[in-house]
Amino acid sequence: MIVTALTEMFRLRHPIILGPMGAVSGGRLAAAVSNAGGLGLVGGGYGDPDWLRRELSLASEQARGAWGVGLITWSIDRRVLDLALGYRPGAFMLSFGDPRPHAPAIKAAGCKLICQVQDLEQARVACAAGADLIVAEGTEAGGHGGSRATLPLVPAVVDAVAPTPVVAAGGIADGRGLAAALMLGAHGALIGTRFYASAEALGHDEAKRRIAAAHGEETARTRVFDIVRGYDWPPAFPGRALRNRFLEKWDGRESDLASALQTEREAYQAAARAGDHDTAVVWAGEAVDLIGSVESAGTLVARIGAQAEARLRAGAGACRA
Amino acid sequence: MIVTALTEMFRLRHPIILGPMGAVSGGRLAAAVSNAGGLGLVGGGYGDPDWLRRELSLASEQARGAWGVGLITWSIDRRVLDLALGYRPGAFMLSFGDPRPHAPAIKAAGCKLICQVQDLEQARVACAAGADLIVAEGTEAGGHGGSRATLPLVPAVVDAVAPTPVVAAGGIADGRGLAAALMLGAHGALIGTRFYASAEALGHDEAKRRIAAAHGEETARTRVFDIVRGYDWPPAFPGRALRNRFLEKWDGRESDLASALQTEREAYQAAARAGDHDTAVVWAGEAVDLIGSVESAGTLVARIGAQAEARLRAGAGACRA
Repeated sequence: MIVTALTEMFRLRHPIILGPMGAVSGGRLAAAVSNAGGLGLVGGGYGDPDWLRRELSLASEQARGAWGVGLITWSIDRRVLDLALGYRPGAFMLSFGDPRPHAPAIKAAGCKLICQVQDLEQARVACAAGADLIVAEGTEAGGHGGSRATLPLVPAVVDAVAPTPVVAAGGIADGRGLAAALMLGAHGALIGTRFYASAEALGHDEAKRRIAAAHGEETARTRVFDIVRGYDWPPAFPGRALRNRFLEKWDGRESDLASALQTEREAYQAAARAGDHDTAVVWAGEAVDLIGSVESAGTLVARIGAQAEARLRAGAGACRA
Repeated sequence: MIVTALTEMFRLRHPIILGPMGAVSGGRLAAAVSNAGGLGLVGGGYGDPDWLRRELSLASEQARGAWGVGLITWSIDRRVLDLALGYRPGAFMLSFGDPRPHAPAIKAAGCKLICQVQDLEQARVACAAGADLIVAEGTEAGGHGGSRATLPLVPAVVDAVAPTPVVAAGGIADGRGLAAALMLGAHGALIGTRFYASAEALGHDEAKRRIAAAHGEETARTRVFDIVRGYDWPPAFPGRALRNRFLEKWDGRESDLASALQTEREAYQAAARAGDHDTAVVWAGEAVDLIGSVESAGTLVARIGAQAEARLRAGAGACRA
C-alpha cells in the first residue's frame, strides 16, 4: 500500500485516478476502479444530460468508495454542473478551460475540485480557482491535450503550485509509470488509455482490441475528428488518437474536410455507430506500447498498485551507504 | 550512492551520463562530469578533426574516471571514428542513424557501444548492432530528436531490448527526473541541457543565461537552424531549441528560408560568432523550467545524484505493509 496526499484525501488503497474519458468512463468503470481502491471518475464529456443521469446513477449505486465526475470546462452549462452535483460525487474534475467560474459551486457542494492543466500558466489559474488537486497532463496522453511532455512538466507544476498536491497524467499505463510519477513529486497518476482497454469501459470491443494491438508510434495529435464531429475545440488542445484511414486521409487537409462536412459527417456517424474504427476515432495515448490485452479494471488497479510498490522498494534497495 | 548496471559498467558513483552536446560538451565538461562520478561524453557532433583532437586530448588528460565521446551517426567519416578511438575513450555513443556499419570498429577497440534511439524500431536495430547500452531519448530533449515522449518510451524500450540496459534521456534536469527514470526500468539518465548551463560547458555565456531564464513552453522542435547552417539532417530529427527572433521569423516558412540562404547564412554566422542568440540557436529541452542558474558540473552531478537517492528512499517510505 502506497500512502500519498491523494490516497489520504479520498481514503484510497492505490494512488490511481481513472481518467474521465468521455463516453468511455461510464458509471460501471468508475465504480470498478473505486471498488478496487482507486478513484473512479465518470467521463461526463460535453455534458449530455441523459447519459450523465444514467452513468452517475450507476456510479453512485455501485461504488463503495470515493468516486467523482469530470466535465470539459469550455463546454459546461450550469444546469449540467448542478445535475452532476446532485448525485453527490466526492470529486469534480474540470479539464480544458478556465475553472474559476465553476469552482465556487463545486466547492460549496463539499466536493473536492480537481483541475487538469497542460502548462504552468494553467496550473497557476487552477491554484487561483482553489483547486484541491491539480492534474498535470503531458502531451503523450490520449484524447485532448497540450504540447508539454509529462516527465519535465510534472516537477515544474509541483514547484509552481506547492503545497497543492499534483497528480501526473499522460503516458502512464503500468506500475513503472506510477512509481515514476511519485518520484517526480506527484501524489499519484491519472490513467486513461489503459482503462479504455478494460472489460467495464464503454465503447466498442473493436476499439479496445485496437488499443491492445497498437504501438506508440501509431498515435498522433489531430483536429480532424473534432472537425467531422462538429466540436469547436480551442486550437490549443488537439486530440491524440490512433492513426486510422480517416486520419491519414484528412491530416493536413483540415480545411478541405471542413468544406466536405455534409457528406463526411454522415459517413462518420454511421461508422461510429457500427464500430468501424478505420473511420471512427479511437482516442489513445503513447502508452499503448504497454497495453497488450483487455482486462478487468479491478485487476488493473491492483496490478498497477502492486507493481509501483515493488518498484519503489527496489529503488531504495539500489541505494548503498 | 545508487548502484545500477550503468554504474557497474563504468564504475560510476552516480548513474548520470553527460549528453554529448556538439560544440558544448567539450573535454573540460566531460572530465568534470567524470571526475564527479558520472560518465562524461565529449560531443563530437559532425566530427571536425581539429576540434576533436583538442577536446579529446583535454578529456583524456583531465578525466580520472571513465569518459567517452559521441558522434552523429549519419555524418560519420571512418577517419574521424578512428581518430576518436585513438584517444582510447571508454564509451562511444552513436546517435541518429544506423549504428551497424560503425559498431565493429568501436567494439574491436574495447570500447563500450552506446546507441541513442528515439523509437522501438531503432532500439531493435541498436540491439542487432551489439549495443552495450541503449539511450531512449524522448522528444522533450534539447537538440535533435524524435517525436515519442520519454515517460512512455523508456519502459517500452526496456521491454523491447531486455536484457540490454537502457538509460533515459529527455526532460531530465534534477534528481526527481533521475529517480523517475530508474522507476521506469532505466539504469540511469543522460542529461544535456542542465549541463549546458554549467561553468565548464563551451558556448556563449548568453546562451547559458537564456537557458537559466527560460520556461519549458518557450522551446520548439524546428528545422530552421539546420537549414540556415547548411546541415542536411534526416527529416525525422528536427532539433528542439529556445524560441528566438530567428525561429519566429522562419518557422513555417522553411522553403522561403532555403531560397534566402545566401544573405541569411552570412548574417546567421556573424550572430553565432557574436553570441547574438536572438538569431543564433540555443539548443535546449523542456526541462529548462527546472534550471535556474549556471553552476559547476561537479556540483550538479553531486546534487542530482543525492536528490535522486533521497527520492528513492522517500518512495519506499511511502509504502506501508
